[in-house]
Amino acid sequence: MTPSAPGPWLLLTGMMGAGKSTTGRILARVLGLPFIDLDDAITQRMGEPLHQLLARQGEPAFRMIETETLLELIASRGQKPLIVALGGGTYVQPGAPERLRHAGLTVYLNASQDELERRLDAHQRAARPLLASSPAALQELLQARQPRYALADLHLPVDGRTPHQVAADLLDALPRNHLPCQSVTVPLQERAYPVWISPDGAERAADLADLRLRALQPAPTRLFVLRDAGLPEAHAQSVLGGLRRAGWHLLDLPVGPGEGAKSPEVLAEVWAWLIQHHVRRDDVLIALGGGVVGDLAGFAAATALRGIRCLQLPTTLLAMVDASVGGKTAINVGGAKNLVGAFHQPIGVVCAAGLLNTLPPRELASGLGEVLKYALLQGEDALADLERRAEALQRHDPHAHADLIHACCALKARVVAADEHDRGLRALLNLGHTFGHAIEALAHLQDLAHGAAVALGILLATRAAHLLHLASSDEAEALTRRLRDLCARCGLPTDPSAFLRDPERFAALMAGDKKAQGHHVTLILPLAPGRIVTHPVATEQLQTLLCDLARADWRA
Amino acid sequence: MTPSAPGPWLLLTGMMGAGKSTTGRILARVLGLPFIDLDDAITQRMGEPLHQLLARQGEPAFRMIETETLLELIASRGQKPLIVALGGGTYVQPGAPERLRHAGLTVYLNASQDELERRLDAHQRAARPLLASSPAALQELLQARQPRYALADLHLPVDGRTPHQVAADLLDALPRNHLPCQSVTVPLQERAYPVWISPDGAERAADLADLRLRALQPAPTRLFVLRDAGLPEAHAQSVLGGLRRAGWHLLDLPVGPGEGAKSPEVLAEVWAWLIQHHVRRDDVLIALGGGVVGDLAGFAAATALRGIRCLQLPTTLLAMVDASVGGKTAINVGGAKNLVGAFHQPIGVVCAAGLLNTLPPRELASGLGEVLKYALLQGEDALADLERRAEALQRHDPHAHADLIHACCALKARVVAADEHDRGLRALLNLGHTFGHAIEALAHLQDLAHGAAVALGILLATRAAHLLHLASSDEAEALTRRLRDLCARCGLPTDPSAFLRDPERFAALMAGDKKAQGHHVTLILPLAPGRIVTHPVATEQLQTLLCDLARADWRA
Repeated sequence: MTPSAPGPWLLLTGMMGAGKSTTGRILARVLGLPFIDLDDAITQRMGEPLHQLLARQGEPAFRMIETETLLELIASRGQKPLIVALGGGTYVQPGAPERLRHAGLTVYLNASQDELERRLDAHQRAARPLLASSPAALQELLQARQPRYALADLHLPVDGRTPHQVAADLLDALPRNHLPCQSVTVPLQERAYPVWISPDGAERAADLADLRLRALQPAPTRLFVLRDAGLPEAHAQSVLGGLRRAGWHLLDLPVGPGEGAKSPEVLAEVWAWLIQHHVRRDDVLIALGGGVVGDLAGFAAATALRGIRCLQLPTTLLAMVDASVGGKTAINVGGAKNLVGAFHQPIGVVCAAGLLNTLPPRELASGLGEVLKYALLQGEDALADLERRAEALQRHDPHAHADLIHACCALKARVVAADEHDRGLRALLNLGHTFGHAIEALAHLQDLAHGAAVALGILLATRAAHLLHLASSDEAEALTRRLRDLCARCGLPTDPSAFLRDPERFAALMAGDKKAQGHHVTLILPLAPGRIVTHPVATEQLQTLLCDLARADWRA
Repeated sequence: MTPSAPGPWLLLTGMMGAGKSTTGRILARVLGLPFIDLDDAITQRMGEPLHQLLARQGEPAFRMIETETLLELIASRGQKPLIVALGGGTYVQPGAPERLRHAGLTVYLNASQDELERRLDAHQRAARPLLASSPAALQELLQARQPRYALADLHLPVDGRTPHQVAADLLDALPRNHLPCQSVTVPLQERAYPVWISPDGAERAADLADLRLRALQPAPTRLFVLRDAGLPEAHAQSVLGGLRRAGWHLLDLPVGPGEGAKSPEVLAEVWAWLIQHHVRRDDVLIALGGGVVGDLAGFAAATALRGIRCLQLPTTLLAMVDASVGGKTAINVGGAKNLVGAFHQPIGVVCAAGLLNTLPPRELASGLGEVLKYALLQGEDALADLERRAEALQRHDPHAHADLIHACCALKARVVAADEHDRGLRALLNLGHTFGHAIEALAHLQDLAHGAAVALGILLATRAAHLLHLASSDEAEALTRRLRDLCARCGLPTDPSAFLRDPERFAALMAGDKKAQGHHVTLILPLAPGRIVTHPVATEQLQTLLCDLARADWRA
């Protein structure tokens, strides 16, 4: 018999002093979930402090009361997410692991004996009924219980970690969809960081950001928030207010809106703002906005004091699925996109999909342009899934968006980990971008959403694969047709021909792209879903290729 | 009997195909030294091609001719530096290593059999008398000779290396002072790079830069030169002309002169210049100038296309002893020094001390301010040496300067390797800088040379060590007196009291320094030569300390 799936609760077990209650309370607050401390529930039910109850009735009777309390709770509240801190002995009782599995997932907060001794001073031990007997009681109890704790679904080491750090570790360790917040880790050793994805809105964004910040070592002193002036004021104030209420000293600067904010002039203003307020190495810069603010804030953080920490709090679908993850930061110089910047990984990314509820349809579609890229990179299943949900994704469905963000970030995290500095594999993430950047430059940056340009770039790349003899005409045309259908359903443009009227200028813009190496431009060409190749083209051949692409039939 | 020191020659030995002649010729050209190919010398002397001579007379007779030629050369030219490519068999003759040691240092260019077979095609082998006999001849010859080659003073692996790379490797491997170019390696694994120090001037600078650039992998396409507009035109044109003559496609942009060029505005101009000329990832940015240009160019290189390669070609003593090495790049924002920047290691540093012959005395003295810091960090010997040579160093003595630059760079390379990102040990290099930056800000950046501010900072730090109870009054006063004497003799200021008139503002400037952590400023305090400690001071205590320092007797 395979065990059934665990119920919706999250239960914390471990020794007294391991931090079950503190951690549970933090996590519940951050996720907006109810929290129950089982010991408190027993005290309340019995109208008597725990140590009295235990002393008066003895441990066997106490365990029966504990089990009853728990079963009552499961019966009344077992259907909905809830975070429960168990008593130190609850989980080690015979039958407890089986009983609790129906309720939910149990996590063992694993503290070593040394750590527990550090945490519990003599006074505290005297107050705990089971430890008061002798100095060796702790060691004996731990040895006796450990084999039972080991049965828990998840084990989390807590030595040397603060409760906020353990709560953050827990978020990262939980299986997908167990709690209403998904985590993707970008695994870059000492620069590893989590991407937290929630279907909730501004309040949750502030709470998650607060958790990430409190888990940082060294602790930040102040927060500088660079925010998109185009973000609805209600969202902005809700995030800022949440952080202030959490006790943070916070300075904020609105920039933009629009791509124009990614300029040397605005960057200089951001630097001056940071310096004027005596930014310190332990301060954190938060990017609250779309890709423009994320790129600008990331670059400012990379360079202020030669590098301070940056937290990305994206507010557009485009930034959530792509721009906020991976540490590429940049500004535009001389009308060319992203040619000046730095690699600077954030210390965390918080995606609250509920923030997208005010996003204009054009911006939502733009995000779907990048999603299209990820789906094509991932393969048939992902592309078919996107085709199934194209219309739903244009509505404001935070759960559907959270799923999508998770899928894209999970892929991006893998690629970034394999090639942080864009020397090889990561180039694939530029699918649609070499054509797309030229299209954006031709559209003078403002008139076309980034994701729309990427979508057109993908279409051009797909047909180019045939023109460069990497795919048959039938294959390329079938894929082009399929992608154009999907673009149309996602609210994305399907006809790049307006941008192909001046192939010479288009070619020059492509040759100026930073992916260009010497006399070649490396194109990223889709042959089929999941089959993407890189292919160098001599810069003098680009114009011919673009003329051929202009001659293709781009009508519906 | 210990072997006597080798003579001034550099002799290259190794198999045919190992690159003795090509490498020797490259190195000789770069260093402006004469070069002799022994085989050519024999041909010339005998008036007959080598293979004919060998075929006609047989090997024993040929070896006698070879030895005679060599002895004649040593007799006539053995007193001066000369680079000699030996014949493949010269060094393996009985008595040759001993004979050649009088002439100089012998380097074995060690190529594996596989490598030699790749390099010598059948045609080439047929042309080499000793290889023509059979396909196995190469292997047999190599096996027979290898134990003799092993007697050479230095062994250099050459498999997979181009002749330029081998020549560069050779420069780095040679013992100090054997050739008129010293090398210090900054040992940062895959980002390791050489600092080459020559007593020669502009022409040598161009030649050494050319060698470094040709040794790069991947090969650069073009060179962007950011140069100090204050550099004498003759020097600038000589360096640029040398690089152009070496065949480089070169673009140059003058900036400055002066600290004002380290601004966001000038940085934006540099970015625009790079982008306008379609800078590519394989291009190299050269910083030709003092610390201002080095910092600005380094930061531009760190950020253009998220990082292109940078070669530092410093033209001031200050930049040669300090600023050009270590990868700290920065600009000034809001009147505060170096608060925006990046860590970006150069791919090489070329210090041609002869370039200092036009440096104004004020600038030379400024460099000595940083030298004072290094001497104090190194200990009694270095400080005493500086005291011995204080006056000489203010004259234009390129050999004395080259020695000094070598000593400072060697220390800095060790510190940078141990703490690239300035988290610990590297903080010691800020000796004099926390006070010094505040002094520079009070002097409005322009009026006081950086090294002069550092020297005053060191004096303040020395007395502060006593005020903070880390040194006795006697110790601190004795060291202060000694350092002030040395400053006076180096043309550096000795009295910081003019800057201490507003301790409140001075303290605020120190607290705004990026070394400040939260509510503390970490001071670097000298207790004695070679005994430097870091010490945190609460920001609210700084003003009291500065008032006490202002009360000290700073008159001569």
